[in-house]
Amino acid sequence: MKNGKYGISDVAEMLGVSKSTVSRVINGNEGVGPELRKKVMDFINEIGYQPNTIAQSLSKGRMNIVALILGDIRNPFYADLTFNIQRILNDNGYMVMVLNSEYNIDRELEFLKLTEQFNFAGLILITAQEKAIEERLKNMEMPKVLVNRILPYYTGDSVLIDNFQAGYQATMHLIELGHRHIGFIKGPGVSSASSQRFAGYRQVLENYGFSFDEKCVFESDLKLETGRALAQQFLEIKERPSAMVVVNDMTAIGFMDGCRKAGIRIPEELSIISFDDIAMASMYGIELTTISQHVDEMGEKAAHLMLKQLNDKDAKTERIIMEPTLIVRKTTCECSEI
Amino acid sequence: MKNGKYGISDVAEMLGVSKSTVSRVINGNEGVGPELRKKVMDFINEIGYQPNTIAQSLSKGRMNIVALILGDIRNPFYADLTFNIQRILNDNGYMVMVLNSEYNIDRELEFLKLTEQFNFAGLILITAQEKAIEERLKNMEMPKVLVNRILPYYTGDSVLIDNFQAGYQATMHLIELGHRHIGFIKGPGVSSASSQRFAGYRQVLENYGFSFDEKCVFESDLKLETGRALAQQFLEIKERPSAMVVVNDMTAIGFMDGCRKAGIRIPEELSIISFDDIAMASMYGIELTTISQHVDEMGEKAAHLMLKQLNDKDAKTERIIMEPTLIVRKTTCECSEI
Repeated sequence: MKNGKYGISDVAEMLGVSKSTVSRVINGNEGVGPELRKKVMDFINEIGYQPNTIAQSLSKGRMNIVALILGDIRNPFYADLTFNIQRILNDNGYMVMVLNSEYNIDRELEFLKLTEQFNFAGLILITAQEKAIEERLKNMEMPKVLVNRILPYYTGDSVLIDNFQAGYQATMHLIELGHRHIGFIKGPGVSSASSQRFAGYRQVLENYGFSFDEKCVFESDLKLETGRALAQQFLEIKERPSAMVVVNDMTAIGFMDGCRKAGIRIPEELSIISFDDIAMASMYGIELTTISQHVDEMGEKAAHLMLKQLNDKDAKTERIIMEPTLIVRKTTCECSEI
Repeated sequence: MKNGKYGISDVAEMLGVSKSTVSRVINGNEGVGPELRKKVMDFINEIGYQPNTIAQSLSKGRMNIVALILGDIRNPFYADLTFNIQRILNDNGYMVMVLNSEYNIDRELEFLKLTEQFNFAGLILITAQEKAIEERLKNMEMPKVLVNRILPYYTGDSVLIDNFQAGYQATMHLIELGHRHIGFIKGPGVSSASSQRFAGYRQVLENYGFSFDEKCVFESDLKLETGRALAQQFLEIKERPSAMVVVNDMTAIGFMDGCRKAGIRIPEELSIISFDDIAMASMYGIELTTISQHVDEMGEKAAHLMLKQLNDKDAKTERIIMEPTLIVRKTTCECSEI
């Protein structure tokens, strides 16, 4: 009974059900009927089951590592995602190795090579949209989960929000407030999340017959300082837009900072909407209107997709698409130029 | 020549110097005289040396992992620290496994067990101050670096700021502004950084003959939401202090948010100073007065201490103590009650 604790196998054996059933119930996953779920839960509560500790799960002496490739752990969106993925995988006996690509394709390719070379148990990635990467992924036979990205020919498990819809929704919010001249700050060219959001924005302009102005489109590497620096470029535009859609909260917060320090009043003179809804977005003095990507849920779903594949080699492929949610705070208001 | 690139060993051999000399010059470390440094640099530039890629460094087929145990990667201070440690260790052929203890001692003990069990190359830790942990560390014979923490009997390599001095400096800043009734928000009891800062605060009160008021001391788990929740407790104090020293920027930002939403004007009615200087601290609308811990430099120094031990088993033990720096922004002002 391992230090007085019961493991998933013990519970399964005692109840005469499969291990994956017990695991599903514990992790709150679907695929178990309400009656069976209740039976398992009641039993678990009765015996005082506690999830295995990592050390117990690893008692076979083998370390199972899942690689997690992302752009930059300093971005709070990635840090939140990582935390949730790691917690769930740890609790199920897997370690997570975080690898910062720094949005560099060569570095990412190296990490993929490494993941294969050292026979990692699985791979979760928020990847660059790039042919070389897609080619390599195709030949990697390990469990894989793609997070918040689309790759044209990738057919494995993935979880994402509908980034096109998110871009569409953000721009529509501004249109409804009467804005007609709307700019955009994109993310790195290799991010499909960014290009999808941009496509949603273009679509709104087209649908409503507003002209697209190349001069009001900028590019960010998703960092706060970059947003701040872009404010300088923004100030140099002759006919400034009355609203901006910004690829992520960190860039938006830096951009707002630069604009406000230059005397632009937000939202009175410039409305700003972005994407992510990081903890900081709700802060007094920031109160950013943003599109939530439900990062905690996204991380949990990514971890569960990985566990599903790790537990069952023949599991059916899933593509989970989550709905973005508009959160209106204080950085957008009615356009004063109408 | 490995894909046309030279490695550190190649450079060392061609120049007839030791590998560690070349490594020191490349990483900008001390311990190499100016002449030799110039000779190495000139040669490197001449042959077009580029640092080894990770994959090349790992070509021996062995994966060297350094464990990095910390509280919670979602705290920007830890994310910044991690990023820098990881970048330098990766460039030198080591992978970093980040382990979130969630400030839980049992979990940390488990991670330590794991680190030994799987024969990790080294261990960098921002640990809890706890006897059980210290006991275990004493018996672990791998390269270890303690970051921003003090353990009474730990004698290995470490890098930290003088947290007592940081607490002293923060409180002195408030005293100089005329504040007499000053509260404190502590970190988790197991953090020596927090208890040292608190000790510095107590020392100032004692030195200047101001009374210590237990009712104005709170505790945070370093998270933004906790700071926000503590604002409610703060509001219930009958005789509120005119200034607060807060253990970290994230707690302070949440605390300010809660106070401002309840109508307290900062800094006019309440001065706030904290510790860390995360990127967000300089933002318009936040502009937090804080004590910088020089996180980038701290991460770099931690990585270099680890590399030193990995390259030379008999390297001399070092304890690097960095000076905290006061950064005055807009959350502190002269006490209006004088």
